Amino acid sequence: MEWLACYRTVLAAAGRDELDYPKVAGLPLLRDSLAGYLGRVRGVRSSVETVMVTAGFAQGLSLLCEALPRFGIRKLAIEDPGHNNQRRFIEECGMRTVPVPLDGEGVDVDRLAATGARAVLVTPAHQFPTGITMSPARRQALVRWAQDVDGLIIEDDYDGEFWFDQSHRPSSLQELAPDQVIYAGTASKALVPGLRLGWLAVPPHLSALLSKVRSRHDLGSDGITQRAFSELITSGMLDRHLRRVRSRYRSRREAFTQAVELHLPCAGIVGSSAGLHAYLQLPADIEESPLVEAALRRSVLVHGGKRYQFTPGERPPALVVGYSTLPLAGIAESMFAIRDAVDEQRAARGRFATGGPVAHRRAGQRKAVHSRS
Amino acid sequence: MEWLACYRTVLAAAGRDELDYPKVAGLPLLRDSLAGYLGRVRGVRSSVETVMVTAGFAQGLSLLCEALPRFGIRKLAIEDPGHNNQRRFIEECGMRTVPVPLDGEGVDVDRLAATGARAVLVTPAHQFPTGITMSPARRQALVRWAQDVDGLIIEDDYDGEFWFDQSHRPSSLQELAPDQVIYAGTASKALVPGLRLGWLAVPPHLSALLSKVRSRHDLGSDGITQRAFSELITSGMLDRHLRRVRSRYRSRREAFTQAVELHLPCAGIVGSSAGLHAYLQLPADIEESPLVEAALRRSVLVHGGKRYQFTPGERPPALVVGYSTLPLAGIAESMFAIRDAVDEQRAARGRFATGGPVAHRRAGQRKAVHSRS
Repeated sequence: MEWLACYRTVLAAAGRDELDYPKVAGLPLLRDSLAGYLGRVRGVRSSVETVMVTAGFAQGLSLLCEALPRFGIRKLAIEDPGHNNQRRFIEECGMRTVPVPLDGEGVDVDRLAATGARAVLVTPAHQFPTGITMSPARRQALVRWAQDVDGLIIEDDYDGEFWFDQSHRPSSLQELAPDQVIYAGTASKALVPGLRLGWLAVPPHLSALLSKVRSRHDLGSDGITQRAFSELITSGMLDRHLRRVRSRYRSRREAFTQAVELHLPCAGIVGSSAGLHAYLQLPADIEESPLVEAALRRSVLVHGGKRYQFTPGERPPALVVGYSTLPLAGIAESMFAIRDAVDEQRAARGRFATGGPVAHRRAGQRKAVHSRS
Repeated sequence: MEWLACYRTVLAAAGRDELDYPKVAGLPLLRDSLAGYLGRVRGVRSSVETVMVTAGFAQGLSLLCEALPRFGIRKLAIEDPGHNNQRRFIEECGMRTVPVPLDGEGVDVDRLAATGARAVLVTPAHQFPTGITMSPARRQALVRWAQDVDGLIIEDDYDGEFWFDQSHRPSSLQELAPDQVIYAGTASKALVPGLRLGWLAVPPHLSALLSKVRSRHDLGSDGITQRAFSELITSGMLDRHLRRVRSRYRSRREAFTQAVELHLPCAGIVGSSAGLHAYLQLPADIEESPLVEAALRRSVLVHGGKRYQFTPGERPPALVVGYSTLPLAGIAESMFAIRDAVDEQRAARGRFATGGPVAHRRAGQRKAVHSRS
């Protein structure tokens, strides 16, 4: 992990004054670097005053759940399908959640409006788990909704840095409406989750309130990691690191796409070529749970799409596959194993098989990446 | 800051697996090192299961304020005089506070019992701000009180590592009653506040609840700093660092004691020779606030004792002096400046003066250290 070199620079320069109590909202040094970086890379409109450093996205969300009730907002709309652990987290933080279905362009704004909610959490760049990118028209509609209800949009941009076709990368939603959108990002995917480093770019009127709320949780984030991350940005090391990682993930994504076309032509990849996972839509006759179990017996860890549906039965069967940690050579093998499992399921029901004989394969334990914050 | 070397060891060895999502309660590696260290140095009885890593003492206290109401505890008794910022913090976290006066042995347990509170926050090693060390008899009485009311004691041991007379260092209160005492420590004084690193050793029955509460605040502390701190403990580097710092602070404390005897014989240092501040009791005729202002005009930053009194008028006038950041050479000068200010005050009232002519001195801006968490 070459990027850890940024710590060496910081350690060589750090003195007692640099490591005194940090500001609760983060070191101005890092907030300034982040404002510049997010503007350049994601079109985010922010400044040192409106950027807040958090202990990962989880803390950002926890602070928001505590702050929103001050505006009379006690109900947070979420995307359906969406992240079930995140939903539980939000509810444990005392906020009610209302799932709102998606169509091919993103969250359904009419159905959102019908819920009466005044805040929504969305993943516009690369929806989790479907991989759908919110269309420009839908973005406009969503922002209009927020303006109409005097509401807020939380944009979780966790996958925004992993876009494989740079020419078509959508910008942030925040760029359209910095007074309505709270932009949230994290170092968990770009670097590692263990830093517990995230950031918010918030509408100016929320800034002081969020610092106040945070000062009841803790007194700020680790100063060494904050300085190291600022160094990572300003030295250009983060850009270089992301180019390398993106290139690696792009190869995996391509291998994955080819493997699906070759071994699992009955399935279709939904969404954009981005991020660290893919949503694989299956034929309607396939039962998800036995397929997930059969894949696991073949050492392939995938999740069923139902796991992420808050309103069951609304969507065709699907698999969510994290390919970022799969060895490149294992991707084709994994899709072949899933095809085996599909065949087995159909054969057991006396239906036609899609391929050759069912052969059990051994492969190292594989791990899909879905957990995040 | 030589101790930063511990990061280099960690950076050389850190891989992706080491920097995955940490456990909410802290890396077992560090919790294990802390349990060993706290047992050896402060007599704390704990284990990897009962130690929790926090983002400083502030987060620990925030989590406790959220957890205690589960046991029907909504009122936290605090020492009077005590830390006013901490009191505000506790109340902002939703817990009521009840100040309980001290006598020369520590918090008054009869008056504590009379409040009806079932939890108390104390600083037994070196009370803040008076510097009083809780006597063995008072410790026993306090533990009996906690057992009688089925209550909890929070032991804030922030100064426990800065005891200048090693042969008489009191052990932790937690050692007496690990089922009633929540022990809290921090790296803020031993190293720097900027790491935002603290720890709790909690009664076993609180362990799971505190992790649960924390998982609604954030998902754990920075993994690099956790590993670095574990390395600092296990390599012996922390012990060496503390010996050096202790020796430096001991010199300052001695210089301070001598300066008070020489220049300010009308004042008396209260409490034990420990920690990073001293409580200087003044003659009854001295008015605190004008003295603090006069000292400030002479570039000496001290706080008045009233600042820390929740029940005004219970104690004689006093100054709280943080000597840890004063340059050694400036300590005598500072006490001389305060004597000047005392003389000036008495002269203005037509009383006798204690010394020679009043001379205004210039010295670099001095900063007392009281802020903590």
